Amino acid sequence: MTSPSLDHIIEQFRALQDQICTGLEALDGVGHFKQDLWTMDHGGGGGRTRIIQGEHIEKGGVNFSHVSGEVSEKLSRILKKEGSRYHATGVSIVLHPVNPFVPIIHMNVRYFEMDESVWWFGGGIDLTPHYIVPDEAAFLHRSLEEACRQTDPQYYEKFKKWADDYFYLSHRQETRGVGGIFFDRLGQEQPHSKEALHHFVMRVGRSFLPIYSRLFEQNFDREYQEEHVHWRNYRRGRYVEFNLVWDRGTRFGLETGGRTESILMSLPGTAQWEYNYRPGVDSEEAFTLAHLKKGIDWINGNPK
Amino acid sequence: MTSPSLDHIIEQFRALQDQICTGLEALDGVGHFKQDLWTMDHGGGGGRTRIIQGEHIEKGGVNFSHVSGEVSEKLSRILKKEGSRYHATGVSIVLHPVNPFVPIIHMNVRYFEMDESVWWFGGGIDLTPHYIVPDEAAFLHRSLEEACRQTDPQYYEKFKKWADDYFYLSHRQETRGVGGIFFDRLGQEQPHSKEALHHFVMRVGRSFLPIYSRLFEQNFDREYQEEHVHWRNYRRGRYVEFNLVWDRGTRFGLETGGRTESILMSLPGTAQWEYNYRPGVDSEEAFTLAHLKKGIDWINGNPK
Repeated sequence: MTSPSLDHIIEQFRALQDQICTGLEALDGVGHFKQDLWTMDHGGGGGRTRIIQGEHIEKGGVNFSHVSGEVSEKLSRILKKEGSRYHATGVSIVLHPVNPFVPIIHMNVRYFEMDESVWWFGGGIDLTPHYIVPDEAAFLHRSLEEACRQTDPQYYEKFKKWADDYFYLSHRQETRGVGGIFFDRLGQEQPHSKEALHHFVMRVGRSFLPIYSRLFEQNFDREYQEEHVHWRNYRRGRYVEFNLVWDRGTRFGLETGGRTESILMSLPGTAQWEYNYRPGVDSEEAFTLAHLKKGIDWINGNPK
Repeated sequence: MTSPSLDHIIEQFRALQDQICTGLEALDGVGHFKQDLWTMDHGGGGGRTRIIQGEHIEKGGVNFSHVSGEVSEKLSRILKKEGSRYHATGVSIVLHPVNPFVPIIHMNVRYFEMDESVWWFGGGIDLTPHYIVPDEAAFLHRSLEEACRQTDPQYYEKFKKWADDYFYLSHRQETRGVGGIFFDRLGQEQPHSKEALHHFVMRVGRSFLPIYSRLFEQNFDREYQEEHVHWRNYRRGRYVEFNLVWDRGTRFGLETGGRTESILMSLPGTAQWEYNYRPGVDSEEAFTLAHLKKGIDWINGNPK
């Protein structure tokens, strides 16, 4: 086993972006990704932002980026590490579907290194159904548990909890959705080689398409009414709140001069807010709200 | 001249809320405010949140609150002041109109005191037109300049700049709108008595209704097309971005357990995002975008 080089990791991330875009175009059937190539000033790398506005995927982004630069004092402080030059590369995805019964999904895989000696991987997948379906949440979590188990039997439990804690709107006391996995700074301290961690991250990335394809295909042609669209837009409002108020990646990007349009591709086409809205007792919407909680065991708990 | 008591300040803020609500109902002609009375846990005060969803004001909130409590370590750190008990009271308003040619407006007046010995006033008014009209921006700024001049000839210039700097989306390099005035921590260090500062803040508060009435009446029945609604919703997206990413009051409230629905009454009913949207060259929308800049002298500059 050889340790993967930065170039190899970048190349694999690019290939993952290509593969996922091809898969999503097939899923949508009509829409095609439009690509913006962008570069940072002063030779600091750049990215490929790809946006789809399709027949069934209302607004979706699949971004690849690789940026590098000198380690600023601010970055040193945030990372609590000294260094001279850093590289950050990754793929990130958010999809907002048309049909309210198809969930919003987010996936991100990323790699960071500083002076080659300090490095780590991060990433995750989480699902935000407008309407929670326990069987679908269980399918997601089983898939992620499998992807984790191949590298470390403890990863799923740890990273599932991490996602519950991370994708949380404390001002609403709601999780963003049914969670998934989230992990960061998987590096030297792990009992796994760099190659093993790279395989793990790529396995997570490659699990995205089969997971989403199934959830999409089960629901994209379900009939819906105006009230479902209202609820979808209302839940999208929560998605906006999470991303702008709590998501560390989004805030870090906006505060440090990242490419705004690439960062905010995660926002939905339309979102709604309604003062103090409460769904009807025993409604489908109330069922969803009642399950936006941390700590639900989706695989074994069988919540009703 | 006698120094205004906390009770007196609170009473005047409540009266201001009443007066403004009555005026806005008359302006809308159809909608009525609905009130939620709320209290903080542990006898920490509460508020009167009033929301209107009218014929012409699509979504508006006029809030009064008075909260008090023990000074936590965190609050001490933020304020850079030691103390045992604090009181914070204020009125805050955000209105999102239906007609794209009527601007969004925000007004806030507030008073803070800690152990009676430390106190200050804060507040401001700023205007966010979906379509900038220089004459209307000049009218706003002239009105505010007058309100400032009666207390201090230097206030307008200082607070106009403060608003330009505060209501700024650095990730977009755009101001939120045509600005207005913003001020904070007007307290003991000022060359004005507490009574004079209280008068100033109340004058700012009372200037809100005549200013907005004129801008509203000039525009609320103007005809508009689908494209204007699209641009209105797109600009509302920027309003959401500012409030959730940059507004210190909003973030402080959400992070410290404030009443979420009262804080987020500032968000519009509907907002839209479109990847990398650029208005047409020489369009009205491009004119607006070109004037979302700091440092424009709206009163004398006569921007074309």
